[in-house]
Amino acid sequence: MGRVTERRRVLRIRDGAVGARPDTLVAEEPLEIRLGGRPLAITMRTPGDDFALAAGFLVSEGVLGRAEELAGIVYCAGATAEGSNTYNVVDVRLAPGVVVPDITLERNVYTTSSCGLCGKASLDAVRTTTRWPIADSPPVRVGPELLAALPDRLRAAQRVFDRTGGLHAAGLFSPDGELLDLREDVGRHNAVDKLIGRALQSGALPLSQTILLVSGRASFELAQKAVMAGIPVLAAVSAPTSLAVDLAAETGLTLVGFLRGQNMNVYAGEHRLALRAQRELAR
Amino acid sequence: MGRVTERRRVLRIRDGAVGARPDTLVAEEPLEIRLGGRPLAITMRTPGDDFALAAGFLVSEGVLGRAEELAGIVYCAGATAEGSNTYNVVDVRLAPGVVVPDITLERNVYTTSSCGLCGKASLDAVRTTTRWPIADSPPVRVGPELLAALPDRLRAAQRVFDRTGGLHAAGLFSPDGELLDLREDVGRHNAVDKLIGRALQSGALPLSQTILLVSGRASFELAQKAVMAGIPVLAAVSAPTSLAVDLAAETGLTLVGFLRGQNMNVYAGEHRLALRAQRELAR
Repeated sequence: MGRVTERRRVLRIRDGAVGARPDTLVAEEPLEIRLGGRPLAITMRTPGDDFALAAGFLVSEGVLGRAEELAGIVYCAGATAEGSNTYNVVDVRLAPGVVVPDITLERNVYTTSSCGLCGKASLDAVRTTTRWPIADSPPVRVGPELLAALPDRLRAAQRVFDRTGGLHAAGLFSPDGELLDLREDVGRHNAVDKLIGRALQSGALPLSQTILLVSGRASFELAQKAVMAGIPVLAAVSAPTSLAVDLAAETGLTLVGFLRGQNMNVYAGEHRLALRAQRELAR
Repeated sequence: MGRVTERRRVLRIRDGAVGARPDTLVAEEPLEIRLGGRPLAITMRTPGDDFALAAGFLVSEGVLGRAEELAGIVYCAGATAEGSNTYNVVDVRLAPGVVVPDITLERNVYTTSSCGLCGKASLDAVRTTTRWPIADSPPVRVGPELLAALPDRLRAAQRVFDRTGGLHAAGLFSPDGELLDLREDVGRHNAVDKLIGRALQSGALPLSQTILLVSGRASFELAQKAVMAGIPVLAAVSAPTSLAVDLAAETGLTLVGFLRGQNMNVYAGEHRLALRAQRELAR
């Protein structure tokens, strides 16, 4: 985990005063993900949890669904001219008999920091097949008060790690609001992939009794990742996109945006919101 | 430009009160970029300026450098089963004699919202060859006061467009602080590609007398795009990554981060900062 941050000299300007000092930056390095030795994706990520990132990426892409489908993940010899290991290339090996969709081998899948759609050979393939339809039984029901408390819990937990101001956070919560896991990355999608990959590795998929909270916006790709992991509730501190809302409506995902203080917008899946005894909002 | 935003019904929760109303969301749709008919990339973008986005993407990838190398860009028949045009597929045609680097045709380049690295066949190819080394002559010199004024100018101009809270902005400024162009997108990298693509189309590359301001963080990919367009100064409202700083230091790019109020951090290329008569910052 030593490469999560790096130190660089910075010239600080504060109200006209200037001074040089060392500064802590979030580390960003490329990670090449291979599947059975074949290059599949490159993502710009913060080093750490690389195996989980690779596993979670393959869940999002519909290749992996259960821990037993994964034979192992190893670092490959890196790409330096000297052949030394950069720990920037991982190879995912599937268990014998696991069928890999042809499409993932025929195409090159490329991904970056805030990525997830990448590597669709055509627009027809945008909506990846859902491995687990969202079927939370018993149904997850969350009140607005509980949701409102989650961003502070995420930030409190994140503050321990983030000295750079450059990390996106993704937190997985129980329906009671307990923080189950927190992952950070320079790329929002990587943080979510790391969460989901760790869940796969520990046999916790589908995550049908969880709430996923992301520190930024809710794009189509983040909604896709939630759906692919069977997560019933996705909450974002900032805005969702039209396509994220459409995907949520189609798949039954509850999508909450602009979760700030006691305020929030619910864009899809309202049935999971415990709203009884709420006042009617004046128009 | 009618698809830049879309309306959806939203359930608003405000301090315990609940009400449904229509809400404006930033539109997000996939765009497939083809080069001479061959699929090259898919990015999740906000519709609008699609030709500029495609052109700018190809500048970032080292394929295009001058307007005369571009024969034309057209919308292809889209991908619906009925064959109707979705305006989500563009084909870029290069002028006769323009040499396309083999690598761009041998690999599939895939990109997404906040993308740019995408599609490197190996880690060796991460650092795209710079078409114009940053050689600003006369050298651009900017004072901290001028830089400090830019975010407000960007926000003032953006406020006209952004009713969604979901758009990233990229602004191109003159060394005097005049806003030359502003582009917005659900993906930061797309906003920068749109700026650079418009500059290519108008024969303004290299952008050697400009300052690029981005509303979010400065990743490696954003620094790469600035370098590929010959932009000497990249300023970001939020944090840079280690790799963005390294690329800036290697290429001579001035990289400013955490540009907030009268405060900022200069991570590389300090020689372009007009710092005379500044007080020394207390340690």
